[in-house]
Amino acid sequence: MPEQEKIQEPQHKAVSKHLVGAVPVVETTTTVEDARALLRSKAKIFEDMSFVYVLTKERKLAGVVSLSNLLEIHDATTTKIGDVMNKNFPFVHPHTHQENAIKIAIANNVMSLPVVDKNGIFVGALTPKDILAILHEEHIEDLLHFGGIHISESFIDIFKAKIGTLIKLRLPWLVIGLIGGMLATSIAQLFETTLQQELTLAFFIPVIVYMSAAVGAQTQTIYIRAVALEKINTKKYLAREIGISMIIGFVVSILIALYTILVFKTASVALIVALAMFINVILAVVLAIFIPWLFNRAGKDPALGSGPFATILQDILSLLIYFSVAAALLF
Amino acid sequence: MPEQEKIQEPQHKAVSKHLVGAVPVVETTTTVEDARALLRSKAKIFEDMSFVYVLTKERKLAGVVSLSNLLEIHDATTTKIGDVMNKNFPFVHPHTHQENAIKIAIANNVMSLPVVDKNGIFVGALTPKDILAILHEEHIEDLLHFGGIHISESFIDIFKAKIGTLIKLRLPWLVIGLIGGMLATSIAQLFETTLQQELTLAFFIPVIVYMSAAVGAQTQTIYIRAVALEKINTKKYLAREIGISMIIGFVVSILIALYTILVFKTASVALIVALAMFINVILAVVLAIFIPWLFNRAGKDPALGSGPFATILQDILSLLIYFSVAAALLF
Repeated sequence: MPEQEKIQEPQHKAVSKHLVGAVPVVETTTTVEDARALLRSKAKIFEDMSFVYVLTKERKLAGVVSLSNLLEIHDATTTKIGDVMNKNFPFVHPHTHQENAIKIAIANNVMSLPVVDKNGIFVGALTPKDILAILHEEHIEDLLHFGGIHISESFIDIFKAKIGTLIKLRLPWLVIGLIGGMLATSIAQLFETTLQQELTLAFFIPVIVYMSAAVGAQTQTIYIRAVALEKINTKKYLAREIGISMIIGFVVSILIALYTILVFKTASVALIVALAMFINVILAVVLAIFIPWLFNRAGKDPALGSGPFATILQDILSLLIYFSVAAALLF
Repeated sequence: MPEQEKIQEPQHKAVSKHLVGAVPVVETTTTVEDARALLRSKAKIFEDMSFVYVLTKERKLAGVVSLSNLLEIHDATTTKIGDVMNKNFPFVHPHTHQENAIKIAIANNVMSLPVVDKNGIFVGALTPKDILAILHEEHIEDLLHFGGIHISESFIDIFKAKIGTLIKLRLPWLVIGLIGGMLATSIAQLFETTLQQELTLAFFIPVIVYMSAAVGAQTQTIYIRAVALEKINTKKYLAREIGISMIIGFVVSILIALYTILVFKTASVALIVALAMFINVILAVVLAIFIPWLFNRAGKDPALGSGPFATILQDILSLLIYFSVAAALLF
């Protein structure tokens, strides 16, 4: 059986929160008939019977037998469980992060997972209901991350929470965002002379900032899912994304340049806006991959580096690039 | 058995895409012993045996028996399935949207759901694997919505898709966003005289736009989940959210006003920025609930009204309010 995961995670997101012990357990020497009798006699007690877990005398996990396999065997009285069990079944550890357990379940197309300690001793199982609950919880959490809301405790209470609690959950990121916004005002102020020289540049601040944020959000959403679901080669992935962003950047830059020339009749502003937008789109893609990658490398949930944090950083950088391009081209 | 859902949904998201027929089916008059024999003889064929579905002679769904219940009954030869079945088991229709099926499964804490047609005739079941797959698919889709990517066909291919396909998926919302951004430049241009009179106002454009978008994104994330998971009273919910937004708006407005006075030494700009931010935060909350509510009422997925569309609308409105407040207070 291959080792299924690496990173040690905080206890409150570990598989051990969910694992149940009330699943059928037999020894390798148990006969199929006796295993069936166990299921019949303890049907009410077991929380899940889709698999029978097969242990050695030392209670190490040796394999599993699915209910279908258990029922279809003909020579039930003579066949031993050890001879029919599946030895290559995926498993997890008590400290495995629940999101990793979900990944393993999906990748192996199974609805139950045995949990073993570091010595291979069986300590329980994740049942289909656990897996459904975890997937549902991770789903809500991912969505809330995008809104800049990080919930470490009871996620479902948000809908019934007191107003004070909700404000405490929502305000911190908004204040961090506000501080980022204050920094942005200072950057704009640095380029006061540039703005005085060409006030039209001010009109394009929202679209410059919006486009970087939008491209960044798209890239990050796709990247975080890709990281969560499959092993990806970051360098190759980044190269591909840069290729895509160059095409996207080219299209939107041409469009905004045409618009600027048609509506504002100024070729210099058109050039500044288009060039800044092109650079910003590519930078947005690089940042949108680099930030979650950093979080992932540091052993943190990459989704934590998404949403508000990336948006603020991108807002500030895109302004800086816009004004720098303007200052360079106007003088 | 209560009717479980109302809205007819497009075929490609309907339960019928997933339903399997290979589940155990018996009649009310079948004995428990015969039902057990059926499981044994067809174990390999059935895709899921967590429940045995009990039908009338007309193949209408009469109830279900869980595997545990089936195994624990003692008088197996004399007991009839009809006497031990659970008659109040949730069910869905072939055209039920898969997301609604998931809601029903989670609300009832079951991992399998029978599917019946409009006459109550049993047509198949959703197995735990189907439910896991649907939940996983909806999860990815919700995340991609936030990035302005709407996928109607094969969602998983995005990671392996050709660059041309990815650009086709990503570019439309970006171009719509760009058009929104062009509209924003025209709004800013309308207030050219205001900006000329007080250039400092231009420095605050990014933070004004950012704060509305951030508050809107938070509100919408929480609201869409609330709508998806429970029946909520929209008026009451909106009132509560407005209360929260007034507190949040008050805090961020005071902070930005203090910053403006300290750094830019201008009380008039401080007043304009703070007032505009306060109005914008409340408006962002109202819009963030109103837009998904509209989509929901129109029978569309409320998540479609989130993300990029709401962001663009909020960007434009927040600019309009900012400049209007400025024009009103400066003259």
